[in-house]
Amino acid sequence: MGFLKFGGFSNHQNTQKPMSEELSGNILVAQSGGPTAVINASLAGVVSEALNHGCIEEIYGGLNGVQGILKEDLVDLAEESQQVIRGLRHTPASALGTCRYKIKRTEDYDRILQVFEAHNIRYFFYIGGNDSQDSAAQISKLAQERGYELRVIGIPKTVDNDLPVTDHCPGYGSVIKYIASSVKEMSLDHEALGQHDLVSIVEVMGRNAGWIAAGASLAKRRNQPDDAPHIILMPEIAFDSERFIYQVQETLKKHRYCMVVTSEGIVDTEGNYVAASSQADAFGHAQLGGAGEFLHNLVETSLGGIRVRSCKLGITQRAAAHCSSQTDNDEAYLCGQAAVRAAVSGETDKMVTLVRSESDQYGCETSLAPLVDIANQVKPFPGNWINEDGISLSFQYQKYAAPLIEGEVKVPYEGGIPQFVALSGNRVSKQLAPYQVG
Amino acid sequence: MGFLKFGGFSNHQNTQKPMSEELSGNILVAQSGGPTAVINASLAGVVSEALNHGCIEEIYGGLNGVQGILKEDLVDLAEESQQVIRGLRHTPASALGTCRYKIKRTEDYDRILQVFEAHNIRYFFYIGGNDSQDSAAQISKLAQERGYELRVIGIPKTVDNDLPVTDHCPGYGSVIKYIASSVKEMSLDHEALGQHDLVSIVEVMGRNAGWIAAGASLAKRRNQPDDAPHIILMPEIAFDSERFIYQVQETLKKHRYCMVVTSEGIVDTEGNYVAASSQADAFGHAQLGGAGEFLHNLVETSLGGIRVRSCKLGITQRAAAHCSSQTDNDEAYLCGQAAVRAAVSGETDKMVTLVRSESDQYGCETSLAPLVDIANQVKPFPGNWINEDGISLSFQYQKYAAPLIEGEVKVPYEGGIPQFVALSGNRVSKQLAPYQVG
Repeated sequence: MGFLKFGGFSNHQNTQKPMSEELSGNILVAQSGGPTAVINASLAGVVSEALNHGCIEEIYGGLNGVQGILKEDLVDLAEESQQVIRGLRHTPASALGTCRYKIKRTEDYDRILQVFEAHNIRYFFYIGGNDSQDSAAQISKLAQERGYELRVIGIPKTVDNDLPVTDHCPGYGSVIKYIASSVKEMSLDHEALGQHDLVSIVEVMGRNAGWIAAGASLAKRRNQPDDAPHIILMPEIAFDSERFIYQVQETLKKHRYCMVVTSEGIVDTEGNYVAASSQADAFGHAQLGGAGEFLHNLVETSLGGIRVRSCKLGITQRAAAHCSSQTDNDEAYLCGQAAVRAAVSGETDKMVTLVRSESDQYGCETSLAPLVDIANQVKPFPGNWINEDGISLSFQYQKYAAPLIEGEVKVPYEGGIPQFVALSGNRVSKQLAPYQVG
Repeated sequence: MGFLKFGGFSNHQNTQKPMSEELSGNILVAQSGGPTAVINASLAGVVSEALNHGCIEEIYGGLNGVQGILKEDLVDLAEESQQVIRGLRHTPASALGTCRYKIKRTEDYDRILQVFEAHNIRYFFYIGGNDSQDSAAQISKLAQERGYELRVIGIPKTVDNDLPVTDHCPGYGSVIKYIASSVKEMSLDHEALGQHDLVSIVEVMGRNAGWIAAGASLAKRRNQPDDAPHIILMPEIAFDSERFIYQVQETLKKHRYCMVVTSEGIVDTEGNYVAASSQADAFGHAQLGGAGEFLHNLVETSLGGIRVRSCKLGITQRAAAHCSSQTDNDEAYLCGQAAVRAAVSGETDKMVTLVRSESDQYGCETSLAPLVDIANQVKPFPGNWINEDGISLSFQYQKYAAPLIEGEVKVPYEGGIPQFVALSGNRVSKQLAPYQVG
């Protein structure tokens, strides 16, 4: 099922599931990649659902993704209080810790299987993005080669919304809800300043795709294209300084200010990041973050005397549980539950996907897609969702994204700030000799 | 009453008020300076209270501070619906518009009085910071010289919390609630990354004082000094690169990451902005707002290979109604009401102040202070509220600031984003010839 196919909805999980074979053993669940506001909701979904199945004996969590599994750093999630598991539903970041460790060595895979065998892990759930789904696929492949019975189900997670097959990714709705809300609030501030020479620049995440920046368009009221943000810059459209400055000037003629939202990863016509940095992360991705600063200086030098304000939302945007989407949160939880149900019913080598109902009223159910169709793949932002001006989003995008930010997660406050939970994290006794990671 | 004097509470407004003389006429209220999340709550307080007094005939608002008054751009606030006035209580920014126009010319003051006379303005309420209170004082002085009966009451407003006499300023509680909440959420994200080489830098407002940066310390749980943020940089403590890098290294030895919150206006031992000097190299002009970027580069160059993340909250911090303090909001409203009551009872040339109760349980009442004691004065951050390490806040600060962020303003959402109100802004007919501003 293509991610743009709104019609033809069916519950793949029901129609394609293999003959169920009861497999007794323990669960291991881990989290990977950049945290989100709702990745812990998926964890809560796994734990809650696991309790419903007699074939599942222990519920273990791996600390810091595959890194902790390699080190045999496991915690007993069944020992956590119900309060904590419930609190995970509104707690941002990864309660189990995360990593960006990329498995390269074959001995790493051997070690993971040893850990699984030592702890009778028969169900492995990996909550993460496309790199993580690749790791999950590799682990499963090796288990099959060795004849070790293991069911592996991936659970989607990424603010980047770039996993293929699934309609959207848990984490995305919350990040764009926070950004659209912040842009809306800022627009009132700028409007109040009553100036015709204020340019405001907001830098948001998005290394390779404009999914997150596009979400800022939800700050516009329906049928009010003149509302802020006036210019949305995405990596899909090559950045052209002259055209940009012209667009800023045109906006200032019409409005009291010009609000620009830019992806961190905007590129020039040669495909080079406008704000490239020498640093690269563990996966070899270039580390960005200077696009806003670049535009700030460009406007100042091109349009002398103009007032420029910029902000860079940074990590706040993916951690902002206090302004997260209830729809996103519910779906993240649902994905965790669905993963357990799928594995217990005999599925493996799949990732849970979200399938949008074809009816006019928004609805979403889970399905499954082969891990190999997800691993290391990226879902591009549909070109025809960007208007011809290159700086605004079409009605199709609005229709796609608007339901994802509906509903407000009720975060408890204490002493005026949000209160979150932490796992007590009772360690599972190690069975193996220490292992040198990395 | 000194702002640090917690004892000796009394309601000055009751004990010092002069003989009440009923003065019939119209109200003019305006907003000035940088907007906040609660400046409209003060406006709502003025309008609501004005309706209680028969001597008040019309309730006018001046658009864009004194700029609109000069242009005779007045709106009729009594015509606004009750829904809109109620909605102002959760709407950020300045519904009347604001300005940073500083009156310099004597003809400007003449013009203002002409406008007041033309519209029978007998009560003038100016919601703003110390510049605005100076303008208010000047207008009042001229009216007295000319024998025009006018009562002028200032209403405090500033996220910077730097007005003298008043215990604190409406706007401050909300900005630090948002920052402390964001820092708390980010700290969970960083903790999850499980690295010992992550330095995270958050730049907040604060050109001349560290009031706003200090508020980030509220993210720490009680008696948990090791909680993030680990380093708070304020303009009150001269920035020393070597000491800073040492502190970062020491933090990384103890914790999984080092979170730094910096005021935009930190200065070196010579008193020069650190950001100004760094920006001057590349672009040839000094500009604030780059302290975070400066520290980012400093850490990267001083500690090779370390992972640095930075964010700059910019305008979001003063506009974030969705995470604003109910205490702050209530007090802003109270200040608006108190201003009207004071003026009606015969007071003039005063600013409403907040006086903290001396009891253990937090409470606050309004009082009045002469405008001349406020105008162009700044309240410094108390030196003894900064610990000897220069990067953390004392218990006294916690005791002072913690009550100000209590309670959460319930902002209505529609379509997943906060919904705010706008004035319909029915114009009052102009009586005078046009005037050239500025």
